[in-house]
Amino acid sequence: MPLNLQENAPAKGVAKKWRAGVLGATGIVGQRLVKLLGGHPWFELTEVAASERSSGRTYAEAVSWHLETPIPEVARDLVVKGIDPVLDCDFVFSALDSSVAGPAEEDFARAGYPVVSNARNHRMDPDVPLLIPEVNAGHLEAIPLQQKNRGYDTGFIVTNPNCSTAGLVLVLKPLADAFGLEKIFVVTLQAISGAGYPGVASMDIQGNVVPFISGEEEKMEAEPQKLLGRWDGARFVDAGLGISAQCNRVPVLDGHLECVSVGLKKIATLAEVREVLQSFEVGAELAALPSVLRHPVIVVDEENRPQPRRDVDAGNGMAAVVGRIRECPLHDVKLTLLSHNLVRGAAGAALLNAELLAARGFLKHRSATSIQEVGERAVR
Amino acid sequence: MPLNLQENAPAKGVAKKWRAGVLGATGIVGQRLVKLLGGHPWFELTEVAASERSSGRTYAEAVSWHLETPIPEVARDLVVKGIDPVLDCDFVFSALDSSVAGPAEEDFARAGYPVVSNARNHRMDPDVPLLIPEVNAGHLEAIPLQQKNRGYDTGFIVTNPNCSTAGLVLVLKPLADAFGLEKIFVVTLQAISGAGYPGVASMDIQGNVVPFISGEEEKMEAEPQKLLGRWDGARFVDAGLGISAQCNRVPVLDGHLECVSVGLKKIATLAEVREVLQSFEVGAELAALPSVLRHPVIVVDEENRPQPRRDVDAGNGMAAVVGRIRECPLHDVKLTLLSHNLVRGAAGAALLNAELLAARGFLKHRSATSIQEVGERAVR
Amino acid sequence: MPLNLQENAPAKGVAKKWRAGVLGATGIVGQRLVKLLGGHPWFELTEVAASERSSGRTYAEAVSWHLETPIPEVARDLVVKGIDPVLDCDFVFSALDSSVAGPAEEDFARAGYPVVSNARNHRMDPDVPLLIPEVNAGHLEAIPLQQKNRGYDTGFIVTNPNCSTAGLVLVLKPLADAFGLEKIFVVTLQAISGAGYPGVASMDIQGNVVPFISGEEEKMEAEPQKLLGRWDGARFVDAGLGISAQCNRVPVLDGHLECVSVGLKKIATLAEVREVLQSFEVGAELAALPSVLRHPVIVVDEENRPQPRRDVDAGNGMAAVVGRIRECPLHDVKLTLLSHNLVRGAAGAALLNAELLAARGFLKHRSATSIQEVGERAVR
Amino acid sequence: MPLNLQENAPAKGVAKKWRAGVLGATGIVGQRLVKLLGGHPWFELTEVAASERSSGRTYAEAVSWHLETPIPEVARDLVVKGIDPVLDCDFVFSALDSSVAGPAEEDFARAGYPVVSNARNHRMDPDVPLLIPEVNAGHLEAIPLQQKNRGYDTGFIVTNPNCSTAGLVLVLKPLADAFGLEKIFVVTLQAISGAGYPGVASMDIQGNVVPFISGEEEKMEAEPQKLLGRWDGARFVDAGLGISAQCNRVPVLDGHLECVSVGLKKIATLAEVREVLQSFEVGAELAALPSVLRHPVIVVDEENRPQPRRDVDAGNGMAAVVGRIRECPLHDVKLTLLSHNLVRGAAGAALLNAELLAARGFLKHRSATSIQEVGERAVR
Repeated sequence: MPLNLQENAPAKGVAKKWRAGVLGATGIVGQRLVKLLGGHPWFELTEVAASERSSGRTYAEAVSWHLETPIPEVARDLVVKGIDPVLDCDFVFSALDSSVAGPAEEDFARAGYPVVSNARNHRMDPDVPLLIPEVNAGHLEAIPLQQKNRGYDTGFIVTNPNCSTAGLVLVLKPLADAFGLEKIFVVTLQAISGAGYPGVASMDIQGNVVPFISGEEEKMEAEPQKLLGRWDGARFVDAGLGISAQCNRVPVLDGHLECVSVGLKKIATLAEVREVLQSFEVGAELAALPSVLRHPVIVVDEENRPQPRRDVDAGNGMAAVVGRIRECPLHDVKLTLLSHNLVRGAAGAALLNAELLAARGFLKHRSATSIQEVGERAVR
Repeated sequence: MPLNLQENAPAKGVAKKWRAGVLGATGIVGQRLVKLLGGHPWFELTEVAASERSSGRTYAEAVSWHLETPIPEVARDLVVKGIDPVLDCDFVFSALDSSVAGPAEEDFARAGYPVVSNARNHRMDPDVPLLIPEVNAGHLEAIPLQQKNRGYDTGFIVTNPNCSTAGLVLVLKPLADAFGLEKIFVVTLQAISGAGYPGVASMDIQGNVVPFISGEEEKMEAEPQKLLGRWDGARFVDAGLGISAQCNRVPVLDGHLECVSVGLKKIATLAEVREVLQSFEVGAELAALPSVLRHPVIVVDEENRPQPRRDVDAGNGMAAVVGRIRECPLHDVKLTLLSHNLVRGAAGAALLNAELLAARGFLKHRSATSIQEVGERAVR
Repeated sequence: MPLNLQENAPAKGVAKKWRAGVLGATGIVGQRLVKLLGGHPWFELTEVAASERSSGRTYAEAVSWHLETPIPEVARDLVVKGIDPVLDCDFVFSALDSSVAGPAEEDFARAGYPVVSNARNHRMDPDVPLLIPEVNAGHLEAIPLQQKNRGYDTGFIVTNPNCSTAGLVLVLKPLADAFGLEKIFVVTLQAISGAGYPGVASMDIQGNVVPFISGEEEKMEAEPQKLLGRWDGARFVDAGLGISAQCNRVPVLDGHLECVSVGLKKIATLAEVREVLQSFEVGAELAALPSVLRHPVIVVDEENRPQPRRDVDAGNGMAAVVGRIRECPLHDVKLTLLSHNLVRGAAGAALLNAELLAARGFLKHRSATSIQEVGERAVR
Repeated sequence: MPLNLQENAPAKGVAKKWRAGVLGATGIVGQRLVKLLGGHPWFELTEVAASERSSGRTYAEAVSWHLETPIPEVARDLVVKGIDPVLDCDFVFSALDSSVAGPAEEDFARAGYPVVSNARNHRMDPDVPLLIPEVNAGHLEAIPLQQKNRGYDTGFIVTNPNCSTAGLVLVLKPLADAFGLEKIFVVTLQAISGAGYPGVASMDIQGNVVPFISGEEEKMEAEPQKLLGRWDGARFVDAGLGISAQCNRVPVLDGHLECVSVGLKKIATLAEVREVLQSFEVGAELAALPSVLRHPVIVVDEENRPQPRRDVDAGNGMAAVVGRIRECPLHDVKLTLLSHNLVRGAAGAALLNAELLAARGFLKHRSATSIQEVGERAVR
């Protein structure tokens, strides 16, 4: 039985769209953001920014487009700007490379822009929310403290997790709520698109597996602690889980597959685990967001699924697809999960974060004048 | 630093070669056996046997040869026989499919042939050695009891483990000896050649991962218990390990990669683990076998190795290559290992088993007459 | 600049839908047909038929579904029938294997069913149209003679060409009209899905090319002669072209790429060739068909396109994408073309043929009673 | 019937080895040269040179080794030098990138070094031999004129052809001798290793074909004219062939496959063509070279061969493997050929060229002093 891939929320409009900029718009993740913003009901893409090399040209000229669907019309003729906080938009997405994202995102936040970041640099900062709306929307309460700490006015930084963390935590969340988590053993089989472009050399991955991805295991062992922990009003309290991660690159285009073994606090049958995952459902506030899935975890019953090539687009790439739920001789339950590294693990994650920020009133409509002034102050 | 791939034992001759037959000689594993027997210092290939469809033609006509090296001259013109115990040879290798191997191997053993089997059917039988010479040579002591139990005369059955078990246990053995083992978590990324030919459809594995291999996890959780356990004179005593296995098929030609986490009984530093693996060495009896590696475990230090395409032929395919030895937040040590599924995990394993049997006097030189007589009795 | 992939004709309704059956519905091409019939504005899928092994079960139970989109609701619960001409439908698509298609299609035609076939068996029959609507719609005039010759009443057979012929001829047609054709040299790089399922073994194609596809070169050298020839009222007159084809299988999922060199009768500049391809447009009759593209040939200007993985879905898989138009030192013009082997080269081709047949009045609404009667006569 | 891959000439020694340097020693082709020089009977590797970034480190430190066999011992500890003509060796191989090879090779020739180059820069120079020993050994007669023209003393430049030209011309040569050539139509399916490292991005070639390789078609249409032409004592006279080439990149590791159609001057049967290719044999002078194959063209009869993954190492990578010899409806004969792009098409080609130069007395044993002096003059 195949998946239902089209759990499309009907488009939900707003009175006035927020104007969005994309930093790092020519990269693999930036392209996905530009695609998702083409025709978005709440956001209008007004600025694309990239490194000096691209800036000055139109987006269509500057980008080496990797997606099968065409460049959205709204983006084609936008002039690519540099990474300076003088963009004509209400907030920015950051798909910047981690080599430059750290200070650049701070510059934008200081200049008044909400920054919705996919970069790893600020994820573990003690006052920056690492956000998956379905998992820890409450962490947004840290924003006022962040602004106060850092002297930001209207600006702030919110991040989404690493591409391989995203799917894992989405699946762990309902288990944590229902049974409590003790420990997680996870081995990933990650797609080449996770390394960007040109990224992985074909000479390295053709008919091969590379059992190492720099920094990835560290992120997978750290980020879930924050995501599944809580904000106590002053700081993030870790979930205190035991997590062991091993990460591999495999010759697959899109979609990170993860083999997981979970130790639970409460005894549960496989049927209960399956039911808890299957029935995981977002609340009314989230259900109103354009990119959300009502059921972000999809359980499949075929014994040889999920498979990256066949299931990666389930739920428009926003689902975590879970299969092979079975007993683990060491922990309690073994399962295999899949999520789209560029959608649920990057561009779609950032977009959903921005939607939640908009719904909670964290995004403002800025006037062009105010932007100009702030920008001028920022570059002075 | 690349691997030293050529730890070739010098050819070690014998006064008179044993004549070997190969059952299932046209399959993927059978072909490897035929290749390895071409020019073997102790064994001479005298018979090839396969299903009815192939029999009657010469081997060169019947086989769809998959190896880059040519069919050994000795095999080309052998007439393919049926799977009947009337072959002109001193012992047989069985590379039969498990759908037919069970009774066929018993028939040969009953007819007086030592059967060195790669099939799964008799591996877990209480009186059949499941053998890796470097790990549990002592299990051969079960053969006399097997013969007595089953009424075999000179014949018997010895098996080698599943292709993904072989490399794992070779690496676990020195750790068990030095530190004691408690539990093993293992996730495999297995090559397509493990499924035989035609095996995996390209439509299924092209740019994809299949997170399921029928029966494989069960074998990986059971076989190490027997291999790392002991023969107490009357029965095999399990090692009593906690093992959790998850098996995946990846688009790689040869070489099973395994991500392992091991819990030890005794505390050990990573340096000690590395040293124990690196210095694992066979004793004098085994060192005299033609196909053995003096050091069957090779430790590599590059952070992104071992890789199937690049390291699969290390030690002529008879090594287990270990890399990425590091601490595990849950158990004691994580590591990645690789072994050649068709050599160390199948044909090479069977060949080494036969060499040990020869060295210990379990193989006899049978006369053609005696074969004829026994065969006639068998088919009557 | 990426392709515009969505030249979607608006859905064009009819007063009463024709009821369609699919023979060979569980195969790769049959699945594509079932998918395309889900929600088709003119046709309603009422019957699925397959070999004895599948029949009796529901379609969802019987099929090993290969597409990323789910099985259409209309098909899931249809009971799979055998290949007997007693189906409750107005016409049938045949996606049967060539080993059975020949007589089966004749049985259906004799029983009164229009048969829209993708099989090769009747393509070169002297009274059977080999049809690409954009190329040789006039060949349908052969149907009355076919019916008379064979004693068919309301039934008949119409075929679409081989998957690698389809894209080639679509591109040759405007060139033939504008400049006249003399000779064509073509080398194909064909996708694995062209061989069906399980089809090509992964052991054969992983990191490899197979320079042979049984019967394919013969088809490519013969079929264009008929397609680009004419019906003279009594017989098909070949186009009299010189065609040389070489066919290769490459490790690509979908999409046949073809490197073509064309010798023209009239001298033409590259700009003229490009313009003729680009401006190729269907007439008013065809423009009314639901699955047609107004411009079935798409010209791309990037020097490294078309590429199978990136461009195969251009024009919903119904386009031939042409790139690299350049001078040929031997003939007049070299170019590279791509078309979707399962859509333009199979299921989409058959569907478009059926649409043209419907538009021209060749499909009738049959009553259930008449079907029963005819069927009973047929099996008697 | 599989190929005989091991037509190994027995090692042929010399009294005193020539000392060889490799320019560009860390690249893909340079590594193959270093490998082939490890244990070469005539040449001793004494120097490795590369761009500034690598120089100063040992070869083992500087190289990212891509081959399955280990770095030859002789090379491991060589200090990587810069690309300056002060190397302690009798001659140099150039595996330099074409962006720097042009003037660098001239510098070395001017400083007295014979330069055996794989780079494209000087291939078509009117006084530089473009050499395949089996094809046009006579072209070496151009060296004295080159030295005179350019004011070189003992130095000179000799080149080998492009990787896709090499196999093609090796197959065309016996056909030209026996039947005369008129025109050649060729479409290539080229391996990723032809683009060096990192070379082709996996995002571009995974499950894909790229129908364009920069400059490749131009080389394939030009180089055979020189190779199959003649040296008339003063200049190279082109062969005057009609050649049309189309080049594609496919997801294959090593081995360029070429689909060829050849028009001959004299009528020939397929059997004659086959016989001429099969019996193509080098003369006594060439037969004495260590790397030569007595029969450099191997004809295979299986209908689906040659295949890159299975046949690329035929004749130690120095053969052109030909299959599918059949009639062409347009020209006279169609065939498919395969050759190893890094061996016959690059490193092995250069090595064989050097061997021929040595056999003909073009390589001298230089003293260290003379090298020092010349070098100092050169950099002054």
